[in-house]
This record gives sequence, structure tokens and C-alpha cells, in this order.
Amino acid sequence: MDYAARFEALISELKLDGRYRTFVELERIAGEFPSALWHGPTGETRHVTVWCSNDYLGMGQHPDVLAAMHGAIDDFGAGTGGTRNISGTNRQHVALETALADLHGKEAALIFTSGWISNLAALGTLGKLLPGCAIFSDALNHNSMIEGIRRSGAERFIFRHNDPAHLDELMSAIDPARPKIVAFESVYSMDGDIAPIAAICDVAEKHGAITYLDEVHAVGLYGAHGGGIAEQQGLADRLTIIEGTLAKAFGTMGGYITGPALLMDVVRSFADSFIFTTSMCPHLAAGALAAVQHLKAHPEERAEQQANVRQLKAMLRAADMPILDSPSHILPLIISDAHLCRQTSELLLTRHNIYVQPINYPTVARGQERLRITPTPFHTEAHMRALVEGLIDVRERLGWHRLQTAA
Amino acid sequence: MDYAARFEALISELKLDGRYRTFVELERIAGEFPSALWHGPTGETRHVTVWCSNDYLGMGQHPDVLAAMHGAIDDFGAGTGGTRNISGTNRQHVALETALADLHGKEAALIFTSGWISNLAALGTLGKLLPGCAIFSDALNHNSMIEGIRRSGAERFIFRHNDPAHLDELMSAIDPARPKIVAFESVYSMDGDIAPIAAICDVAEKHGAITYLDEVHAVGLYGAHGGGIAEQQGLADRLTIIEGTLAKAFGTMGGYITGPALLMDVVRSFADSFIFTTSMCPHLAAGALAAVQHLKAHPEERAEQQANVRQLKAMLRAADMPILDSPSHILPLIISDAHLCRQTSELLLTRHNIYVQPINYPTVARGQERLRITPTPFHTEAHMRALVEGLIDVRERLGWHRLQTAA
Ligand SMILES: Cc1ncc(COP(=O)(O)O)c(C=O)c1O
Ligand SMILES: Cc1ncc(COP(=O)(O)O)c(C=O)c1O
Repeated sequence: MDYAARFEALISELKLDGRYRTFVELERIAGEFPSALWHGPTGETRHVTVWCSNDYLGMGQHPDVLAAMHGAIDDFGAGTGGTRNISGTNRQHVALETALADLHGKEAALIFTSGWISNLAALGTLGKLLPGCAIFSDALNHNSMIEGIRRSGAERFIFRHNDPAHLDELMSAIDPARPKIVAFESVYSMDGDIAPIAAICDVAEKHGAITYLDEVHAVGLYGAHGGGIAEQQGLADRLTIIEGTLAKAFGTMGGYITGPALLMDVVRSFADSFIFTTSMCPHLAAGALAAVQHLKAHPEERAEQQANVRQLKAMLRAADMPILDSPSHILPLIISDAHLCRQTSELLLTRHNIYVQPINYPTVARGQERLRITPTPFHTEAHMRALVEGLIDVRERLGWHRLQTAA
Repeated sequence: MDYAARFEALISELKLDGRYRTFVELERIAGEFPSALWHGPTGETRHVTVWCSNDYLGMGQHPDVLAAMHGAIDDFGAGTGGTRNISGTNRQHVALETALADLHGKEAALIFTSGWISNLAALGTLGKLLPGCAIFSDALNHNSMIEGIRRSGAERFIFRHNDPAHLDELMSAIDPARPKIVAFESVYSMDGDIAPIAAICDVAEKHGAITYLDEVHAVGLYGAHGGGIAEQQGLADRLTIIEGTLAKAFGTMGGYITGPALLMDVVRSFADSFIFTTSMCPHLAAGALAAVQHLKAHPEERAEQQANVRQLKAMLRAADMPILDSPSHILPLIISDAHLCRQTSELLLTRHNIYVQPINYPTVARGQERLRITPTPFHTEAHMRALVEGLIDVRERLGWHRLQTAA
């Protein structure tokens, strides 16, 4: 077996297809977000404006968050040196779990080292422990939910994206006595569209299913206290489990689930991916807690972000840019071609000191290649003007069709 | 479907079986490791000595590590706000990867948010991309390797623990043309025994297999530079991939693989669990780098730890304690009964202010229940005396057989 040849062929295929990823090396600068230092492959640097960060509200540089982290490092040190069960449960974990349960109006919460693992652990475990379980999964669910569902071994049914009628059809076709889980997201990351949560809950309830909502791109960002779309729409109590991340609007790292204490206890007790790994550093839990508390008490960042989203959207429309009409803070600019999309990103960087990562297959479907633009409260009007001018310049150079309209 | 009844039954089963886990809530105190504050369920606190931490060398409180973290938080903030591919690759990641590759004498390295994920990603991806792959797995491999192998979809063959002859037998029985991976650990976490790495590599080489070694419980601890057992025995170049954690001897959080640049590129490009998750915080990478660099240059902590291990082992033997004769820094004290093991731990805590977590099924086989004792450079002779006296007292109260000998 010639391993190298096999692996080289796989990499060549990616390259031919325009799908090979080269990491852009950044240096974040605390206090100057969304500016950052870009390091090129040959040692050159550039000050750039980042337009594709999921540090949606700039909490990654918020003084309260950084102070909480500094304080906790001074007091408790770096790592925990243990799994949650073996010397690795710290006060900071318990405090954060209490605050997250409260944020979502749930009995209990459980934190993980990432949102990815929280979906793997929760869906993987619940689906496995319910004999004959059927999991109904939105067609555009995130990779981590798909992996969790796969890991559970439960039978999977995929319903058309955001289509409660199709969900109902699928649920009606199986034995009513079977245990069921309906798994979906609130804000979908790539299109920025929002699920019809109430209608999906109606269908799930009718069929006696557990509901599982991924609010990774909504927690901190929506609702009076940053509890997500479910809070904003007054629907949190209709969801059995709400899952979120600490790594986007909460500015740090880690993930969590909230829900009934019994279900948290089950995941805690049975999920290998929770049991057999070192717990989160105490200072990360402390930093995330500070972010959650700040955003619970302060709607300002959310309001500023929404205002910037509206303004940039209007500016992009005025410039005839092919953006999807999303109802959220995510502005997808559809280029529809992998190579053009990559070139757009490169020219924005080299000619305009703007960094927006191209999003290609398999993260989005072929023909749906895009720039995914995420305004924050820290993007100024000057940043926005520079972005729009940069896009106009690059569009001219690359010759996108002026009247291309988004799907 | 009565979900609550089903889940309650599962939890009851654990409780009846003595397997239900109650987390011990600790407060680490930077600078006082291995002392910590224990928080009881009703609000009481106690100063305890921790004897079951995997912060093996106390790097979790090392001034260099904490200073690097503080500095990086000041400079770069908290989270990265992105996946490695979308605005989430930072200078600190690249620097840490370079240092880890160097530590193991490999071309390249790739970091993950945990050791658990590194095994899932690497084994899951390599096994999947090699058509017809057979993975040979030591019978006592860690859950994360098992999950990776399962995820790969490759056919799995389990060889008897640390038995190269059995491995050879299994490898000889399949088509020689098939791609093969041999996956094993160096120091096994629960028994503290060490794999016959050279003999296993001989067999793997004979059959043209990729070798994959988990050195999670050895990196930082063995070898002239902390490169693990493979470094200590001069075998690093016989292993295709070496996997490690940043969360044990390196005192922080995260995991990694090192090996040929091509294989790192393949995992980076194809592993969903690497691609679809927010990258590690820059300050964690900076802290881990400081730990790696310190332990590369300073053998003192390793030497002190080994001296303490020898001393405590002699003291435990002198007191007729049923400890396994392990060649590593892990001292398993075999109690052989889940309830007795839990009671031992409870009495050590309440009567002696000593915290050692009981290790029960499924982490170890039934009948193999134990305390897993891990001396560090920071345990003093007084700590050791207190531990041995505590164990003698508890043994008397619980009536373990005085002459019980370890398996
Ligand atoms: C919908 C969704 N769920 C889960 C995750 C994983 O969260 P984390 O980055 O915390 O692993 C992501 C992206 O990273 C996501 O987009
Ligand atoms: C052998 C082994 N591999 C991997 C891991 C996972 O490492 P981490 O704690 O960094 O997730 C562990 C324990 O945690 C382990 O014991």
C-alpha cells in the first residue's frame, strides 16, 4: 500500500477543485477589533479589517471578560488537570452552568469544551439511549448535529429545510409509539435565515417528540437577555434542549446544553465525549460567565450590531451587491463560483486590506459559493464604506455580472 | 413514549450499581497545588490535598505558563471568533504547532481543542480515507481512540493488551495489500504500564502499517525533552503519528497530533471535527507553548516527580498497600469493589482531608476498582506520610484484607 500516493491524490483533488484551504494567519489585537494584523506566507504583515468573525459582539476583547480571565488565572491557575469526574470539576464550571440554565429558563445546563462536542455528546447519547429512536433533522443542520445523530445509531429522517409540513409528513409515517427527537437550528449560519420555531414545535408536540434547538449563532445576540431566538419569540419553554456555544457572541471557547435536570444528568452520566476528556479551564468558564452576565444585563451591543447590520445591508443593496435577504445579522454575498469567490477574497485583501474568507463547497453547496459578512458593533461607517468600495472595485476587475441577483 | 421514565430508569440502574458519579467541586489555588479547596454539597469547605490530578508536573500553576497566558490575553483578547479556516488561525497556533513538531522530531503538527478530539479526528479521518483499511487496536485503548476507529468505518481488530505476538497473528491473517493502522498508547492511564513500542513497531513495519501512538500520559513526563516514551526509548522516528494532550503534563487544555506534513494536511483538510469548530483561544496556545518550552529545557520537574513516585511507592509497599507494580508515575491501588472503593475515597476526604477519586466500572473492569494515585513534584514528604497514614486508618475501618495482593 502506497499511503503517500493515496493521500497526495486526495490533496491534489481538493486543489484542482478549488477546495484546498490555506489558513490565513492573523494576529488579533485586543482593543482594536475588528482590526487585526495579517501575516503573509513570506513574512509580510498588513493591518486588515476583519469582516468574517463570529466574535459577533466583540466580547472577545470586552474588559469584563478579560478581567474575569486574568483574575481566575491568578487565583486558580491554568488547566484543571482532570476530567469532570476525576478532580476536574471546579466552582467556575458550576457557576457557569447555573447562569446558562437561568439564561434559557431551564432547570440545568452542562458545559463542554466546544459547541461541536456538545452536539455530538447530547444527540449521540439521547438518540442511543432511547430504543428505536427516530431523529428528525433539518436538511441544513450543522456538521456537529449530523455527527451526533450518526453516533447515536438512531434512524435519521431529514426534513426539508425549515419545512414543518414536510416534518409532519415524515413524523406521521412512522410508528407513533417510537421515541422521537426533532433537531434543528434557530439562525442558520450560512444563509442567515431563521427557523419557524413555533411551527416546528407544534409538529413535534403533536407527535410527542423531544425538541433540540441549536442556537449557536443566536445566543447572546437575540432576546432581551441574549437567550437567543427562542427567548426573543417567547418559545424557550417549548424546547426540551437548547444548545449553544461560548465561542461566538460570548467571545471565548466551549459549548453547552440546557434543559431538564434529568436529561442533563443522563448526558453527563453516559456521554463518552463528555466523560473521557479534561474539563474546561476555570478561567475560560469565568470569562464566559462574565460575557453571559454582561450581555444579559446590556442590550446595547445587540442594538448597535443590529443597527450596523441594517446600515451595511442598505449600502450593499444600493451598490447592487448580490446579498441574500436574510432576517439575521449574517449577510451572505453570493458569488456562485469557487474560483471567483477565492479571487474576490484575495483582491479584497491585497488591494483593500479587507479580510473576508471565501466560503466554498462543502461548507455550502456548489454554485452557492459566497462571502459571509458579519457586521459587529465595532465596525464603523468608515469600515463599511471601505468594504463597499472594495467590493465595487473587485467586482469590476473580476467582472461579476452587475445585475446578478441572489437566489 | 414516556421519556422521563426511561431516563429515570437508566439513572437508577447506575445508582444501584454504585456507578452513579457525583462531581466533587474543587477550587484550585494557584501557587498551592496540590492543595485545593473542596466545596461540599451543603456549602461547607475543606482544604484538601489532591492525589489524583493529571496536572502531573504542576504546570497548571507554573509562572511561565501563567505569564504567557496573561500576556496573550492582554495582547490578543479571549477567543478567536472563528474556525481555523474562517478567521480563526492565529500566530499562536502556528507557533505551538511548530514547537510540538520539533518536540517529537516530526515534520508538522496539528492542534485540536482536546486530546479526545485529536484521536477522533485523526483516526476517524485516516481510517476513512484509506479504502479497505484495517485498524489494529490495543485492547485497552482509550475511549477517544475507540471512537475515532468507530467513526472511520474501517474494520477493527483488537489485539491483546501489549501483545505484539497477537498483533502479528492478526495482521498475518488479512490480505497483505490492505492499508493498515496500528493504534496504541505508550503509558496506559489506569494501570500505568508501558507498551513494548519497539516490538509493536517491528510487527507493524513487517506488515507495512501506519503506526499511531497516544502519548497523552507521557508527553512532558518522559524523554530528555519531554517528548514522551518514544523519545526516551529513541523510537520517535518509528512512529508515523504521535498524539498528545496539552491538558495533563502541559497544564492547560487542548490536544495535538504530529507526523508527516502530508498526513497533517490530510487531517486538516478532511476531518469534520477539526474543520467545523472554533479554534483554540490564542492565550491557551501561548500558555501551552510556554509549558512545552519549559519542560523541553528543564528536566528538574520530571526528576523530582520520579523521585517522589519512587518514595511513595516504597512507603505504600512498606504499609502493605495493594498497589500495582507499574513502571510509570501512575500508582494504582487496587480495592476490587465499587462500594468499598467509593467508601475509601469518602473516608480519606472526611477523616483526612485527602482527595483521591474512586475509579470504578466502566473506566476500569469490574473487580478492578481502584484509587489511581499520581505523585507530582509538589507533593512533600509530609503529604506522603499523611496519605499513607490515612490509607492505613481507612483500611482498618473498612476491613480490606491485609494481605490482599494486587493482580
Ligand atoms: C450551527 C453550529 N453549531 C455548532 C457549531 C460548533 O460550535 P463550536 O465552534 O463552539 O464548536 C457551529 C460552528 O462552529 C455551528 O455553526
Ligand atoms: C489515553 C488518553 N488519550 C486521550 C485522552 C483525552 O485527552 P484530553 O483530556 O486532552 O481530551 C485521555 C484522557 O483524558 C487519555 O487518557
